[in-house]
Amino acid sequence: MSETPAVIDRLVAALGPAAVLTDPDVTSAYQRDMMPLAPHGSPLAVVLPASVEQVQEVVRACADAGVPIVPRGAGSGLSGAANAIDDCVVLVTTKLNEIVEIDQDNRLAVVQPGVVNLDLRNAVEKNGLFYPPDPASYDWCTIGGNLATNAGGLCCVKYGVTSDSVLGLEVVLADGSLLRTGRRTVKGVAGYDLTKLFVGSEGTLGVITSATLALKPIPQAPGTMVAAFPAASAAGVAVTRVVREGLVPSLMEIMDATSIAVVETYLKTELGAGKGAGALLLCQSDSGGEVARRELAALEQICTDAGADLVHTTFDAAEGGMLLKARRAVLMALEEHGDWMTDDVCVPRTKIVDLIGGCERIAAEVGLTVAVVGHAGDGNMHPTIVYDASSAEQVALAHKAFAAILALGLSLGGTITGEHGVGKIKQEWLARELGEVGMRVHREIKKALDPGNLFNPGSMFSV
Amino acid sequence: MSETPAVIDRLVAALGPAAVLTDPDVTSAYQRDMMPLAPHGSPLAVVLPASVEQVQEVVRACADAGVPIVPRGAGSGLSGAANAIDDCVVLVTTKLNEIVEIDQDNRLAVVQPGVVNLDLRNAVEKNGLFYPPDPASYDWCTIGGNLATNAGGLCCVKYGVTSDSVLGLEVVLADGSLLRTGRRTVKGVAGYDLTKLFVGSEGTLGVITSATLALKPIPQAPGTMVAAFPAASAAGVAVTRVVREGLVPSLMEIMDATSIAVVETYLKTELGAGKGAGALLLCQSDSGGEVARRELAALEQICTDAGADLVHTTFDAAEGGMLLKARRAVLMALEEHGDWMTDDVCVPRTKIVDLIGGCERIAAEVGLTVAVVGHAGDGNMHPTIVYDASSAEQVALAHKAFAAILALGLSLGGTITGEHGVGKIKQEWLARELGEVGMRVHREIKKALDPGNLFNPGSMFSV
Repeated sequence: MSETPAVIDRLVAALGPAAVLTDPDVTSAYQRDMMPLAPHGSPLAVVLPASVEQVQEVVRACADAGVPIVPRGAGSGLSGAANAIDDCVVLVTTKLNEIVEIDQDNRLAVVQPGVVNLDLRNAVEKNGLFYPPDPASYDWCTIGGNLATNAGGLCCVKYGVTSDSVLGLEVVLADGSLLRTGRRTVKGVAGYDLTKLFVGSEGTLGVITSATLALKPIPQAPGTMVAAFPAASAAGVAVTRVVREGLVPSLMEIMDATSIAVVETYLKTELGAGKGAGALLLCQSDSGGEVARRELAALEQICTDAGADLVHTTFDAAEGGMLLKARRAVLMALEEHGDWMTDDVCVPRTKIVDLIGGCERIAAEVGLTVAVVGHAGDGNMHPTIVYDASSAEQVALAHKAFAAILALGLSLGGTITGEHGVGKIKQEWLARELGEVGMRVHREIKKALDPGNLFNPGSMFSV
Repeated sequence: MSETPAVIDRLVAALGPAAVLTDPDVTSAYQRDMMPLAPHGSPLAVVLPASVEQVQEVVRACADAGVPIVPRGAGSGLSGAANAIDDCVVLVTTKLNEIVEIDQDNRLAVVQPGVVNLDLRNAVEKNGLFYPPDPASYDWCTIGGNLATNAGGLCCVKYGVTSDSVLGLEVVLADGSLLRTGRRTVKGVAGYDLTKLFVGSEGTLGVITSATLALKPIPQAPGTMVAAFPAASAAGVAVTRVVREGLVPSLMEIMDATSIAVVETYLKTELGAGKGAGALLLCQSDSGGEVARRELAALEQICTDAGADLVHTTFDAAEGGMLLKARRAVLMALEEHGDWMTDDVCVPRTKIVDLIGGCERIAAEVGLTVAVVGHAGDGNMHPTIVYDASSAEQVALAHKAFAAILALGLSLGGTITGEHGVGKIKQEWLARELGEVGMRVHREIKKALDPGNLFNPGSMFSV
């Protein structure tokens, strides 16, 4: 602790006083992300470097002083990975927000980590290009955070996750040196795939200061199909048939009965699901024209065969947008019923029904509402627990439900996190999923790249 | 060396005498892969384990005795990565050749590493599924080798490389323990992406004993378009336009003037390119029906606008197959002109023309034939040098041309290997591409996972 003032002095000397925040009233805004129940501490300082060199300076200063660094972007995360620990330096990347290059002919962009996802989407769209990853927070989350957590979104069923769009990175390592991974070419196998090692490493191995991203052609305006089922099991049958028949919609979302009910109340509208609908499937095709029509007709047929009470397809952008809005409104709708905490498990797509059924049982058992929404096309479900954060008893029950959902996901052959990450809330679950050898390899890699345990110590796993 | 007999005894005890080959006349067949100029040594023994437990036994025995292990599959590699070094044990995975599971509903397969790529393709096709990676040697290369080199092929422009199809692995580590990476779900971010760290690691980090592979729906029967250009530059303009316009053919191959000429002679047929054609583009669409027609028409238009002398589209499977056969026949055709050595660089797609032009200059400079064929859709080019392996002078010139092509690829913003790997022929080039920090990180990871330098020492890089 005696070195504390020295490190602050050094940070101020390197970054200027305006970029080094130490007032607790100010730094508290950078203490945590959007996962309410993850622990967080009080940072020594929050720094906002504005260049790669400044990031290197921060890393060297902290390494020399033995002060841990927690890197973060906008703080939209849902695992506490960006949460401060006591006496750390929070390294915020939001000032590194330049779109350095958009290369239309090679379909790539080079960006700094603080660029907001939506800003990148808009910028490349002007060049006739498309950046697929679309986490729910896409209008305020940063690319750096997306990279650190390997963020997903609604696009994944057709376009994959963030790591599928990354060609190369620049990363400041624990000794302050700058590592360049990957390349600007579409293919390349020169050496280990370090790019994908850093993507999803949740700020535990280095600070990403630049990314070269692969872009896609802009897809066609989507057509949208909605299907309402009497029970989740019927919707599950439809999802399995869609996968089996080789259909690849550009979006396939599921809402359970609880989600439908709260959204209908919240939006003061009917989703056309009828009273007491058991589940809703929302699908899009962005293939355009005749192909989209054929894909959506095939999806309609599958849903009807699986027992849907209602199927409806629209190519009207406003109507399609409304339906998507309903899906995106679930969390806000749940807010009217209490505090919420969203879980994130991914199961084999044939097991979605079992997951929804299991969540119903867990909800009944703990006596809390659990609404299930999720990306049915890839089995990534977000059971969301509604509770009263001011009640210690309800908080304990919420934790119990959260854990029961993870155990259920694992028992169904799934993973404890499809896209939100491990962070500071699922460390023990990571060990349970990976096993002893897997954890040992994680520790060996962490120790090899960050021997002083400088970056985000205790997050994801302890060394 | 004194421990040699002991390790052989132990291997024989574990695997049985038939699975431990020591006769030099027999082991010589396992000394090298298909890259003629990569160095190779004489193995102490060649072992063919038939179970994961036997692989673990081999690893433990060799680790205890300090005998290095070179893992290999069928030996179709083109970088010498599977080449034996003196007094090593070559661990052949071809007896681990079971397709353990095909899960149609979750679109995945679990396979052992010795399964031949084509056997997997055929097996999943019977279940209505498609395994995209299609290296040129797909009818005899193994999945294990594909994983170790992160193999590509003609499919990559639309379907990506091997790592894009891998969900999880089982790997025997240097201490004989069994690591499970990844998962059976489509998405998952629990921990570091160890799966992709091992894919493409060329047998330097462990022995892959099982892989869970993501499958795709079977695409439609392809339509094929061929375009002949007066000069490579015009074909390059067409490739850039295709990328810029957002077209994604399922195949887009380029052949330069030399490749066209040797193939026409070899197949005793005309490719319709006319006398002295400068380049040929071969494209396919597997989107089916009206969409394929539209895609191929758009490709035709782009080629015509770029100055093609001839464009021709066919939906006749036999005719399309003939055209593809011509592309695949280039190496065999070159064999009639001498020995060949194929290089493997990947450049930004806008730089293909510069690469072909540069290869012409290099060919003239060294006085050898260099034929350029490649995957134009992703910039992955295979300039192939024809020389006389019995002439020391020509061998030296071939080496010179090989190196000049790599330097050219790097100078164009490309990589020294798009899909063949580094192996035992491009180690110094890897260091040149990755730089000091990149190499240090490689060594740190290697040391963390294989502290005794047991696996494929000296291949890819030296510790």
